[in-house]
Parts: sequence; structure tokens; C-alpha cells
Amino acid sequence: MIIVRTIGQMQSQSRVWRRSGRRIGLVPTMGFLHEGHASLIRLATKRSDTVVLSIYVNPTQFGPQEDLEAYPRDFERDEALCRDHGVTAVFYPDDTEMYAPSFSTWVVEDSLSLPLCGQSRPTHFRGVTTVVTKLFNAVLPDVAVFGRKDAQQALIIERMVRDLNFPIEIVLGPTVREADGLALSSRNRYLSEAERARAVAIPRGLRRAQELYAAGERAAPVLCSVVSAEIGSAGGHVDYVACVSRSTLAPLGEVAEPALLAVAAFFGCTRLIDNAFLD
Amino acid sequence: MIIVRTIGQMQSQSRVWRRSGRRIGLVPTMGFLHEGHASLIRLATKRSDTVVLSIYVNPTQFGPQEDLEAYPRDFERDEALCRDHGVTAVFYPDDTEMYAPSFSTWVVEDSLSLPLCGQSRPTHFRGVTTVVTKLFNAVLPDVAVFGRKDAQQALIIERMVRDLNFPIEIVLGPTVREADGLALSSRNRYLSEAERARAVAIPRGLRRAQELYAAGERAAPVLCSVVSAEIGSAGGHVDYVACVSRSTLAPLGEVAEPALLAVAAFFGCTRLIDNAFLD
Repeated sequence: MIIVRTIGQMQSQSRVWRRSGRRIGLVPTMGFLHEGHASLIRLATKRSDTVVLSIYVNPTQFGPQEDLEAYPRDFERDEALCRDHGVTAVFYPDDTEMYAPSFSTWVVEDSLSLPLCGQSRPTHFRGVTTVVTKLFNAVLPDVAVFGRKDAQQALIIERMVRDLNFPIEIVLGPTVREADGLALSSRNRYLSEAERARAVAIPRGLRRAQELYAAGERAAPVLCSVVSAEIGSAGGHVDYVACVSRSTLAPLGEVAEPALLAVAAFFGCTRLIDNAFLD
Repeated sequence: MIIVRTIGQMQSQSRVWRRSGRRIGLVPTMGFLHEGHASLIRLATKRSDTVVLSIYVNPTQFGPQEDLEAYPRDFERDEALCRDHGVTAVFYPDDTEMYAPSFSTWVVEDSLSLPLCGQSRPTHFRGVTTVVTKLFNAVLPDVAVFGRKDAQQALIIERMVRDLNFPIEIVLGPTVREADGLALSSRNRYLSEAERARAVAIPRGLRRAQELYAAGERAAPVLCSVVSAEIGSAGGHVDYVACVSRSTLAPLGEVAEPALLAVAAFFGCTRLIDNAFLD
């Protein structure tokens, strides 16, 4: 396994691989890898023969009051996980490599980025689409793998790839969960033991809403309120619970098409997101 | 020479070329080709062995009151010129191929795009950077050639390539002029015979300013006023004349660094741009 620190070196390496007919898979991450990332590596391994995992805590997707500085980092552990999972190269650029002082070009998705997390994190998705474009151009992958836990992000990246014609196949991996249902996230490490125990209200609420839906309930406000109630009674603070179209993210009154039930909630100072499909 | 109508076909073709070790040069155009474009094809031919010329009148770089519908088109003539100049492929997508009804992703440069043409055409450069990104991803070139007549556009594209890490070398070709100095432009065909004769005031003004600069004049307002006066006395209407830093496009008071003297002016209803270097 090689560690690549510069964009130029990454592009040269990828072009060598491409010329020799190898198919490149990219797993973009912010590091502090967990079993969710490992599952994405396995997906990339199935779809390509050369897996690049990028580790970059991208400052432009954090808001000014957010946890950029606190975001957990452990490169040695990440490197070991990548090695164990057969990753070919870790792309590990630093900020000076990624953002020149006069940086001024952004990739902006201006429809799907507006609701849900776009409401509480207004510059977040601009940072995501911009850095993903940069990673695509640095790694030149044939296929890139993202997690479905970040459902809105995944939809936005699929839209970006379509709109800007990136010659890249996007593959989405299912959310990996702890035994009690909490979605894996690097941010779970912020939770105190008590907060961690209470945070399970998020997947419990989503599951109850899915059960209600399976029993015939189609009113979006009812399905959302089940989730909010679970979180509230566990002492969490709901940022949003929304039932939206899975293709446009437009809010639904009645669930008459494939829907996404999406939630963001705080336990203590930690903001967690999760979602469930209704169909 | 092949004509390629779809993005998918273009990407497949480019990948075949790449695998066989060929170096791809792209000349992006809006068609109605003239000797300026021919000079860019010759530059591309020097820097690559496979030249793709794209023809696409990009609607998103035209403002609502601008000349999108009137923009001159002559595909047969363009095709013949390309064939005569040894172009390998003409990429000729249509609007339905380029912009889906739900298109929502833009590439935005938010510094160099603000002054000069950005003032009078506020959405123009967003359209340019977006379509150039799309063309880059469709054609996958090693090198792309643009004209220096569109000096601000060239600088913005260089910035975009740096910021978003496109693995593409940008080459700029000098402005090609008529015998009397008027810069070649597809829009010159809008000019009546009288307007055409008067429009030569633009390059004449720029040349006078360059002569003043060579004689030691360093005050930007003086250099600009020479250009404005020439255009005004020929009956043209100045949109802007500006003396700006050639690296940042910031306005200069004194010309103490490599400068760009940039002009946009109307003769009749036709808006023409031109520029000169001061150094």
C-alpha cells in the first residue's frame, strides 16, 4: 500500500494504472475510519481492482461554529485499517495542497442542497461538492463509493456527476449500524456514555415510523412526529425530521412515492444524522 | 474526421485514444469558426496528436437580453474548416444532451469573475466555467486551447483548472486580427458596413494607449481615457475600459505591474471586447 501526499503524484499514479488497464475505485473519507468505511472499501474492491481511499478533513464543508478543529483524527489507525482491507493507495493531501490562499472556484448544487442539512449548514454542501470534484480530478476514478447514511450528500453527488458529466460511476453503500441500531459515524466518539445510550432514540424512532408506514400510515406529519417524539423523550434536540421525495427532496404531505425519512438531532453538543427509506 | 453528438460516445472515444497512448487536445468553441479558431487548432495540433474541436452555443453563458438566438451558426462551413485543419473529431452536442431539465450544478469562480465583463454580464462566467467543466469531462483532454481575446475568461479558466485540479494543461493563443486591427470574433458579422468601419476605433485606442505606456505614461486613468476617447469619437458606446492587474484583475491606479487594458464597447447593438497587455 502506498501513501500519496500530493495531487500531482496521485494523478501520475492514476494515469499509470489507467494505461495498464486497471479500474480505479475511490472511497472518499474524512478519516477516523470505522466499519462503515470498511464496508465501502469492500464495495469498491468488488467494482474495481485498484482502490484509493482518500483521507481529508475538508475545512470548506464545516461552518464557522462547527467541529473542524475537534474532528477526530488517527492516521496510524486509519492506515492499518486500509492495509488490512487491501486498499492500494491512501491519498492523504494537506490543506496547503488542497486550497491555495487565492482559491476562488466552487462547485455549487443549488436545488437538492437547499432543504434538510442545507438549512442548518448553509455552506456545507458547497464544500462537499467542491472537494469531491477535486478528489475526482486528483484520483481519476472509474467508480466512487459513498455511504447512504449521508443520503442527501449521496443524492447531491449523483446529481453533480450527471450535471457535470464526470465519467465516474457512483455506488452507494448501506448504512452500517451498531448492535443497538445507532448508525456508525466518526462523530459518535463525541458522545458521553449517557448521550450514547440516549442517541439510540434516532434509529428507534425511524424504525417505528417504518413500522407505521408498513401498517398503512401515509401522512408524512404523523410519520415525522413519531421520530421527533422518540428523540424528544430521550432528551435529544431535533434539528429536523422530514419526509421528502427520494428523487427531489421536496417535502411530502402524503407518502405516495419512494420517500426518505431524514433526521438530524443533537445529543449534547453532538449533531447526528440518520435516515430511513419508506417504500 | 468524426462527428460526435453524445457525451457518452465522446468519453468512450477519448478513453480508447488514451489507452492507445494518444494525447488529446481540445479547442472549445461556439462555432461559426474564423481564422482565430484556426490558429487555436494549429496550437492544439502542436501540443497533441488528437484534436477535438467542440461546437456548442452554450445557453447558460448568455443573459436573458443577449444574443443567444441570433448567435451565428453554420455547421457545414465549420465542419469543412475543421477537416481542412486536420481536426480529429468535432464534438457537437445539443442542448438536451448538455442540460437536463432538472440541471442544478454550477461551477462558480467568485473573484476574477466579478469585475469587467462580470459587471455587465453577471451570469456569463458561471455559464462559461460550468460548460467548460462539462466539456473537459466529456472530452478528457490533456491540453485545452483558449484565445487571449477573451482575456478574463482565460484567466478564470486557468484559476478553475488550478482550484479544481483538472489534469489539463491550458494553452492560450494570441488574438488574431483583421488587417485594420479589429479582433476576429464571430459577433463581427452583426456589424453593418458603417459600424464595422467605426469599430476599428477599439484596437486603435488600445494601440495608442500602448504607445503612451511605451513613452512612459503610467497613470491608469490616462491610459484608459485614450481608449474611451477613440471609441467615443467613432460613435461607439463604451461598456467599460479598465486597466487591471494581469494576475488578479484588481483595478490599478499606477501601472507598476504587468497590466491588462481591457475594453468592451457597443457599435450599434453589437458588443465587442478586446484587450492589450501593458508590460
